[in-house]
Amino acid sequence: MPVRGLQSTIQVGNTSANLPAASGDVYRRSMHGYTQDKDAYLKRLRRVEGQVRGLQRMVEEDTYCIDVLTQISAATRALQAVAVGLLEDHLGHCVTQAIEQGGPEAQAKVKEAAEAVSRLVRS
Amino acid sequence: MPVRGLQSTIQVGNTSANLPAASGDVYRRSMHGYTQDKDAYLKRLRRVEGQVRGLQRMVEEDTYCIDVLTQISAATRALQAVAVGLLEDHLGHCVTQAIEQGGPEAQAKVKEAAEAVSRLVRS
Amino acid sequence: MPVRGLQSTIQVGNTSANLPAASGDVYRRSMHGYTQDKDAYLKRLRRVEGQVRGLQRMVEEDTYCIDVLTQISAATRALQAVAVGLLEDHLGHCVTQAIEQGGPEAQAKVKEAAEAVSRLVRS
Amino acid sequence: MPVRGLQSTIQVGNTSANLPAASGDVYRRSMHGYTQDKDAYLKRLRRVEGQVRGLQRMVEEDTYCIDVLTQISAATRALQAVAVGLLEDHLGHCVTQAIEQGGPEAQAKVKEAAEAVSRLVRS
Repeated sequence: MPVRGLQSTIQVGNTSANLPAASGDVYRRSMHGYTQDKDAYLKRLRRVEGQVRGLQRMVEEDTYCIDVLTQISAATRALQAVAVGLLEDHLGHCVTQAIEQGGPEAQAKVKEAAEAVSRLVRS
Repeated sequence: MPVRGLQSTIQVGNTSANLPAASGDVYRRSMHGYTQDKDAYLKRLRRVEGQVRGLQRMVEEDTYCIDVLTQISAATRALQAVAVGLLEDHLGHCVTQAIEQGGPEAQAKVKEAAEAVSRLVRS
Repeated sequence: MPVRGLQSTIQVGNTSANLPAASGDVYRRSMHGYTQDKDAYLKRLRRVEGQVRGLQRMVEEDTYCIDVLTQISAATRALQAVAVGLLEDHLGHCVTQAIEQGGPEAQAKVKEAAEAVSRLVRS
Repeated sequence: MPVRGLQSTIQVGNTSANLPAASGDVYRRSMHGYTQDKDAYLKRLRRVEGQVRGLQRMVEEDTYCIDVLTQISAATRALQAVAVGLLEDHLGHCVTQAIEQGGPEAQAKVKEAAEAVSRLVRS
C-alpha cells in the first residue's frame, strides 16, 4: 500500500487533525468519506437499480408514458440524493484532510469538488 | 385529412371516445408513443442499469468520491435523456391524438405533460 | 370545429396555411400561447428581476455566501416555473394549432418543444 | 475584533496560509469567499438582470415561445454558474477557515454547504 505512505507521513505531527493515528482502516476512512457509510450507499444504489429495472418492466408492459416519466423523476432524484450525500462525505473527509494539511492540494480539492457540483447541477 | 394517415383510420367510427374500438395492439400503439421504439428504450434503460451497478462496484471498491460523482452525473444525464425521448414520443402520439380528437381531454393531456416536465426540471 | 372557439374565427378563409391572412394582432394571438397571460408573465419576470437585483445587493453588502446561494436557488426555481408555464401555453396553443393543421409542421413543433425541454432539464 | 482573535492565532506560523495579516478588510475577505471577486460577481449578476429584462422585452414583443424558453435556459445557466462560483469561493474560504479552526463548527459548515448544493441541484 505505497500510496498510503505519504499520507501517514503527513499525519505525523499533525496535532490539530481530527484523524486517528494511522491504520489500514484509517486510510479508507480518511481517503473516502463514504467508506463508513458504504453499506448505506450500496443499499441506496441497489434501490435505484431496482427503480431502473422497474422502469424496464413499465416499458415492457406498455405503461402509460407519464407514469414512466414520474418514475424516471423519482430515480433521478434518488441518484442525485446519493450524489449530495457522497459530496457531503467527501467535503467532510477528503477535502477536510487536504485543508488540514494545507498547501496547494487543499485548493485543488476545493476546485475539484466545485467542478463536481457543476456537473451535478447541469445533469 | 390525408396527412394523418394511419391515425385517420383509427378515428373512423370513433367520434367521441379517445379509445378506438380496434384491437388491443392498435390501442397500445396509439396510446403509447414509445411503443414502436420499445427495444431502443429498453436497451437504453439496461445501459443505465449497468451504470448503476457500476456505481455499486465503485463504492464497493472504494473508488475516489469525485469519480463516483462523475459517474452519477453520467447516469442521471442518461436517465433524463430517456425521459426527454419518452416525452417527445408522448407529445407526438398520445397528446397529438388527444388534440386531433379535441375537447377537454386535449387540454388535460397538455397540462399533464407540462406537469411531467416540471417534475423532470426539478429532479 | 366548435372547440376551437375564437381560433376558428382565425381559421376562416385560411384552409391550409398556418398563418392567417388576418391582422398582425390576430396572428400573434394565435402563434403565441402566452399572449393572453402576458401580464402575468411580465409580473413574474419582474419579480425575478427583483430577485436578481436583490442578489446584487446581497453581494454588495457581503451577505453570507450560503444565504446568497439560497436566494439564487429561489430565483432559478422562479425562472424555471415561468419556463414550464410558457411551455404549457406553447403546447396548448402553438403546438395544438400545428397538430390541428396536421402535416410535417406538427411533428417539427413537437420535436422543437422536446428540444426546449431538454435544454430546460439540463440548465 | 474578538472573533478574529482565534483565527489570527491559528494563522501564526502558518506560512502557507492564503490569508493576509489582520485588518478590517481581512475579516470580510476571510468570512466571505466571494468578497475579493465581488466586482466580477456583480458584473455577472447585472448581466443576468439584463437577461431577465430581455425576457420581459421578448414577452412584451410576443417573441416566439421557444425563443423565450431558450433565453430562460441561458439565464438559468448563468445563475447556476454564479452559484457554483460562489460555492467554490465559500468552500475555499468560509469552510476552509472553519476546518482550520476545527471542532463542530467545521462539520456544521460542511453540512450547510451540502444542503446548499442539494437546493441547487433540485432547482
